[in-house]
Amino acid sequence: MPRRANIISCLCPNGLRKILLTVAYDGTNYAGWQRQKNALGIQECVENAINELYATAKTVTAASRTDAGVHAMGQRVAFEVDNMQIPIRKLPQVLNRHLPMDITVQFAEYVPLDFNPRFKAISKSYRYQIYNAPLPNPLVRRYSAFIPNTLNVENMRQAAKHFIGYHDFAAFCATGSSAKTTTRTIFDCTVEVDSISGIIKIEVSGDAFLYNMVRIMAGTLVYVGLGKIKAEDIPKIIASLERNKAGKTMPPEGLVLLTVKY
Amino acid sequence: MPRRANIISCLCPNGLRKILLTVAYDGTNYAGWQRQKNALGIQECVENAINELYATAKTVTAASRTDAGVHAMGQRVAFEVDNMQIPIRKLPQVLNRHLPMDITVQFAEYVPLDFNPRFKAISKSYRYQIYNAPLPNPLVRRYSAFIPNTLNVENMRQAAKHFIGYHDFAAFCATGSSAKTTTRTIFDCTVEVDSISGIIKIEVSGDAFLYNMVRIMAGTLVYVGLGKIKAEDIPKIIASLERNKAGKTMPPEGLVLLTVKY
Repeated sequence: MPRRANIISCLCPNGLRKILLTVAYDGTNYAGWQRQKNALGIQECVENAINELYATAKTVTAASRTDAGVHAMGQRVAFEVDNMQIPIRKLPQVLNRHLPMDITVQFAEYVPLDFNPRFKAISKSYRYQIYNAPLPNPLVRRYSAFIPNTLNVENMRQAAKHFIGYHDFAAFCATGSSAKTTTRTIFDCTVEVDSISGIIKIEVSGDAFLYNMVRIMAGTLVYVGLGKIKAEDIPKIIASLERNKAGKTMPPEGLVLLTVKY
Repeated sequence: MPRRANIISCLCPNGLRKILLTVAYDGTNYAGWQRQKNALGIQECVENAINELYATAKTVTAASRTDAGVHAMGQRVAFEVDNMQIPIRKLPQVLNRHLPMDITVQFAEYVPLDFNPRFKAISKSYRYQIYNAPLPNPLVRRYSAFIPNTLNVENMRQAAKHFIGYHDFAAFCATGSSAKTTTRTIFDCTVEVDSISGIIKIEVSGDAFLYNMVRIMAGTLVYVGLGKIKAEDIPKIIASLERNKAGKTMPPEGLVLLTVKY
């Protein structure tokens, strides 16, 4: 029945609207955001859920193409519909019925037809979590990286401040990136320790991020925490533009895309 | 090589010692603590790890037989060894090599041979977590119950205080329990909201707990939060000794065994 209604509505181009979703997911069991041939991407699940509601196949566009194993609280996903029969405020609940438990739509809103969730973003923020204790904790391992050697958080905090500003972050970009330019603006970068769980939380916001940039920044801050490099060396590492001067790329499970602002 | 050494040491009864482990686990993928015929219990994994190190089969005893899906930060597990060849402070690391990622030994210590981790416990504490928001959050769903209707936390806090003390908790005991007596002492019961995640945390400590007791207490506090029962009705519910007067048994994923004190 809804399918027939949609086929009729396709004849009416005036009904075309664009919807922006806020999507949260546990990335553990996915091959990243993007649709892939031989592995399950989160995009495929979201598109399948949308196509359960609308007759014509819908392709979605996301604010951030998160990597395999990376999580999201506030991923943004846009798609067009020919005729919106479900009230927009009910759409999250309806879509969630067609989504697996580890992906949920949190919010839905209308946006202009020319809205692009990636290029219209003015700010994105990420959190990287580190569990720093002698032995691993199974209750946090899905959402944090484990570092057994004691980290000096105060030094990490000092180092984080050096990332703030407009810089060429070529040293913090994984090879294989197709970015036209490697200059980005970091608005803020903080390091906090959760008093109850003891988890170290690195939070970073910026206008845009290079491939693996947050995970390399986190890895560099870990090197500072371990005393392998000094906090005041960060400007030199940035200026070098050389990937091998920065720290290791931290594993994906510690990373979560928090928010995207427009 | 270690196996031969152990066979020899079995001839020397003087070497008998008892070890107490502190074990953390994510219970999601297990059929509870206890060894079972057709499902994997956490006990089986811990016994297998111990038996990798010692020639003779070891049976372990735990402080709490946590149910399927219930987690632990500080489960206590005791077993005897004929001859301890591994330094006790290195034992957690060595055992963890033989354990799956979702079970880790956090600490190991020697205890007297007559020590029983269940009956020697003077206090146990549990936490029950509730995610209270209009839509579920995939990043917390493994470790919390989801309640979409707004809970009145202040009323829950008032109700929790009524659990404190020496009471007959028959109304808070699942049928099928083999407990000789249903009187228990609750030392403390608090309800807090995590300011960042918004998760409601019910923490309860007592001398011992009946079958499903914490999950029924949490379910009763949820009924108070929803306005289905009043905070001041808790003493009447306790006095009734009737299971059907208390709230529902909450799902296992929200429960974690925090600590066991001796």
